[in-house]
Amino acid sequence: MVELGTNRWGKSGVRLSKLIRGPDHDDFLDLEFQVLLAGDVEPAYLEGDNSAVLPTDTTRNTIYALAQDKLTEDLESFATVLCDHMVAKVGIESADVRIRQRRWHREGRTGFTGGGSERRLARVQGDAAGIRENWAGIEGLVVLKTGGSAFVGFPRDEFTVLPEAEDRVLSTSINAQWVYTDLPANTTSTWESVRDVMLQHFFDDWSASVQHQGWLMARAVLDAVPEIAEISFELPNQHHLPFDLARFGLSDEHTVFHPVSEPYGDIRFTVTR
Amino acid sequence: MVELGTNRWGKSGVRLSKLIRGPDHDDFLDLEFQVLLAGDVEPAYLEGDNSAVLPTDTTRNTIYALAQDKLTEDLESFATVLCDHMVAKVGIESADVRIRQRRWHREGRTGFTGGGSERRLARVQGDAAGIRENWAGIEGLVVLKTGGSAFVGFPRDEFTVLPEAEDRVLSTSINAQWVYTDLPANTTSTWESVRDVMLQHFFDDWSASVQHQGWLMARAVLDAVPEIAEISFELPNQHHLPFDLARFGLSDEHTVFHPVSEPYGDIRFTVTR
Amino acid sequence: MVELGTNRWGKSGVRLSKLIRGPDHDDFLDLEFQVLLAGDVEPAYLEGDNSAVLPTDTTRNTIYALAQDKLTEDLESFATVLCDHMVAKVGIESADVRIRQRRWHREGRTGFTGGGSERRLARVQGDAAGIRENWAGIEGLVVLKTGGSAFVGFPRDEFTVLPEAEDRVLSTSINAQWVYTDLPANTTSTWESVRDVMLQHFFDDWSASVQHQGWLMARAVLDAVPEIAEISFELPNQHHLPFDLARFGLSDEHTVFHPVSEPYGDIRFTVTR
Amino acid sequence: MVELGTNRWGKSGVRLSKLIRGPDHDDFLDLEFQVLLAGDVEPAYLEGDNSAVLPTDTTRNTIYALAQDKLTEDLESFATVLCDHMVAKVGIESADVRIRQRRWHREGRTGFTGGGSERRLARVQGDAAGIRENWAGIEGLVVLKTGGSAFVGFPRDEFTVLPEAEDRVLSTSINAQWVYTDLPANTTSTWESVRDVMLQHFFDDWSASVQHQGWLMARAVLDAVPEIAEISFELPNQHHLPFDLARFGLSDEHTVFHPVSEPYGDIRFTVTR
Repeated sequence: MVELGTNRWGKSGVRLSKLIRGPDHDDFLDLEFQVLLAGDVEPAYLEGDNSAVLPTDTTRNTIYALAQDKLTEDLESFATVLCDHMVAKVGIESADVRIRQRRWHREGRTGFTGGGSERRLARVQGDAAGIRENWAGIEGLVVLKTGGSAFVGFPRDEFTVLPEAEDRVLSTSINAQWVYTDLPANTTSTWESVRDVMLQHFFDDWSASVQHQGWLMARAVLDAVPEIAEISFELPNQHHLPFDLARFGLSDEHTVFHPVSEPYGDIRFTVTR
Repeated sequence: MVELGTNRWGKSGVRLSKLIRGPDHDDFLDLEFQVLLAGDVEPAYLEGDNSAVLPTDTTRNTIYALAQDKLTEDLESFATVLCDHMVAKVGIESADVRIRQRRWHREGRTGFTGGGSERRLARVQGDAAGIRENWAGIEGLVVLKTGGSAFVGFPRDEFTVLPEAEDRVLSTSINAQWVYTDLPANTTSTWESVRDVMLQHFFDDWSASVQHQGWLMARAVLDAVPEIAEISFELPNQHHLPFDLARFGLSDEHTVFHPVSEPYGDIRFTVTR
Repeated sequence: MVELGTNRWGKSGVRLSKLIRGPDHDDFLDLEFQVLLAGDVEPAYLEGDNSAVLPTDTTRNTIYALAQDKLTEDLESFATVLCDHMVAKVGIESADVRIRQRRWHREGRTGFTGGGSERRLARVQGDAAGIRENWAGIEGLVVLKTGGSAFVGFPRDEFTVLPEAEDRVLSTSINAQWVYTDLPANTTSTWESVRDVMLQHFFDDWSASVQHQGWLMARAVLDAVPEIAEISFELPNQHHLPFDLARFGLSDEHTVFHPVSEPYGDIRFTVTR
Repeated sequence: MVELGTNRWGKSGVRLSKLIRGPDHDDFLDLEFQVLLAGDVEPAYLEGDNSAVLPTDTTRNTIYALAQDKLTEDLESFATVLCDHMVAKVGIESADVRIRQRRWHREGRTGFTGGGSERRLARVQGDAAGIRENWAGIEGLVVLKTGGSAFVGFPRDEFTVLPEAEDRVLSTSINAQWVYTDLPANTTSTWESVRDVMLQHFFDDWSASVQHQGWLMARAVLDAVPEIAEISFELPNQHHLPFDLARFGLSDEHTVFHPVSEPYGDIRFTVTR
């Protein structure tokens, strides 16, 4: 006897941009949506009865249709609009709305430069009973520093050949998500503050490891933004490996490195109040 | 007052290949590893004390070092070897070992063709107390059918324009993971059986939706392999959209489509016993 | 005084699929088009006068519109249809049509598996005076062999540390393009023959280098297909590097490798009659 | 009778980073190299004789070995060093050296942010007779503007449905390469000037098409930098398509768009003196 467990359906990879004309300059939002629903759709699985399966194409259309009037820079607010709209439907029990923003840098009144890997994330999970959980995040914020990072004092076993490093190049792509107990009054400026605090503590704080660096960043974010209950990080260690020049008879000054995209050190942690 | 929550560290994206010479033909394993550890490393975060932080470089070296003697086609067995090795260390409480295999198709005694998106996944999660959880999976198995798929009878709202389809092109990339109550005697042939059952029921069973198709596949897998306790699927609906030719004054025979990589219908579910 | 030189415009990345119903089984073509045009559009550049600039959106629509009646498995034939259509327009002097086919493997009457990196390429370049140049190609055909490949006898300088290898793992992604003096009667079966000959000579012929292996493949293709005037290869050497286990005190059996995606040996050559 | 035509060999995808300590702040260069050689290696192809085939691994090592002393921000200068080194070898007739720089933005004394798609390109082609051709370029500079772009007055045929647009969102990824008659005294500041001029004329100049916009940019670059003989552009039109809201009974304000990565308008041209 087999049975259906948890299940969700919706649309992912929905790209949408919106032009907001202003008196002094235009704004331009460049977003990607994922909306996943849960509800009573067991008959769809077991019997092929689609009477409760809102088409994923409808979910996509809904995003565009509501965006014209409701979408602003306050992404959490629009995610809530979408969540509310979805869970108000008969048979939809919960909705999980994620918005990722590609960032454009303003260049004058109507111009922008882009192309960066960094994304702002806004996420609202909600149900038909009115519960709402508000998340935000940063993805792909690539940083590097040439000083203020060490890695020494680690345990050694038969397969350890890594030399101790009192001063090394440290690079990572910051990926962090946090949950708000209460939504801040201005989600965009709060997000900017979180980003500023992260960068400041990555660049200015000496660290003994990726873990230590991450802790310093996380603690500072929680100190700075009281509405954040908890924050999780994924910090890939994007290695710039020493390239051994001594084997060519050269004196190795340790200034030339071999950056590799794989493998990478994979550091993940959560910090709570 | 902030405090450290759950945390893990290790190495991801470790690529390793192994040549196994045989009397009649060679075998060639092409793998990617991820090994994440948990343990008592709070001092590393709070104080920069690395005395318990096994370097991720050591984790990487361990994979290569153990592979020479222990790695065979039975990936779950080698994942267990790695897991056992890691949790035997002082201070390591648990290990999560994932192995992804790129598949090569044999061409004669020493030749192979490759380049496909499909991956076999083996995963062992274990702790220092001796608990082991054994997972397996398939990722990126791309399938399409030109018959035996419908989507009708769904609810319509103000944003629904999708026409009902009695007969449509259905394509997805099968991603599935399952957990074994007991490891099968031959994990490789069991994996092949799961794959065969999935394909058979995708190609042969008429379905009313991706959900219905997925249920038929999942149920058949659970019927065929008693060692599987539970299976989860992620089935992106890779749309081949009709391209409207009528606006050019042509009679539209509905044979020409526009495949899109985004957005995609996103169907996720678990089936249990 | 600056002036406009060579220039082209058109549409790239046009994905199109076509379903061809058959009595015994269906066929499914999954294609990507690039159509670049040249013509007298200097006023568009210098003066912003678009009267000769066929919109790239029109080029895209043309591909879909003509595909319903004219597109078959004979890709070169359809590329010629597109080329003829374009250069017949006032102001269009030449057209360069490329079609890349994603290959699906038939599974029964209506089923297919896909997901491979391999592509079939068809290309027709033509002009308003009636000249047509017919190209075909293979891209992303990934192959590997565990025997029959050496690399010895190369020159050594102060930066050479590569050991000689009498027997090594050799892997590449075959990328080849060839030009036909006359189009073969059946372009699809000819393409299949070229592919078979390449694979046979990669797997069966002992080689002293990627260059030597490529020569043997190219020569065999030219021997087998008299309509081919010239063939060019790009053969990235996808290295499986030895992973040094001796530094861990292990006896190294040279069966464990570290595959890397970058850097890669980059071998390019043309063979003519 | 078949024979070997043009051929080259070398290493691609060689990633190298270099740390340059400074009194006030550090510099960090993050580069990717491609070095292709030509020479008399016909015996390698026809007979498997490698006596003239400099291993691609040696080419890679050479890049790292010379970088320690010779590599600075003046990429063209280091490309020349590599080219000179290679063509000085017996049997090497010419070398083609390309360097792509990932750009990092300085953040304080030792910090940097990165992750952008933009690359600086430097290229030197040279031969054993002493001829050197110096190229530079920009790749992946993503720009967008919400005003100052139109596309009207184009020809219409039976497959044209594109509406005329007096004011549209225009976005592209600037890819340009240019050749220097003489190397400027400071290749880095010249490169920055070219970039500034391109951006200024993209953002400030009204254009009637991508072609027109490109011409204005190219002409301005040639006006600003006398050492540039010729410049070529590839400007993909990265469409933000209107999403039709009228079909949902909404009044469509034309502020909501659907960005697509494929297909794209493909505009390519060269401007010379």
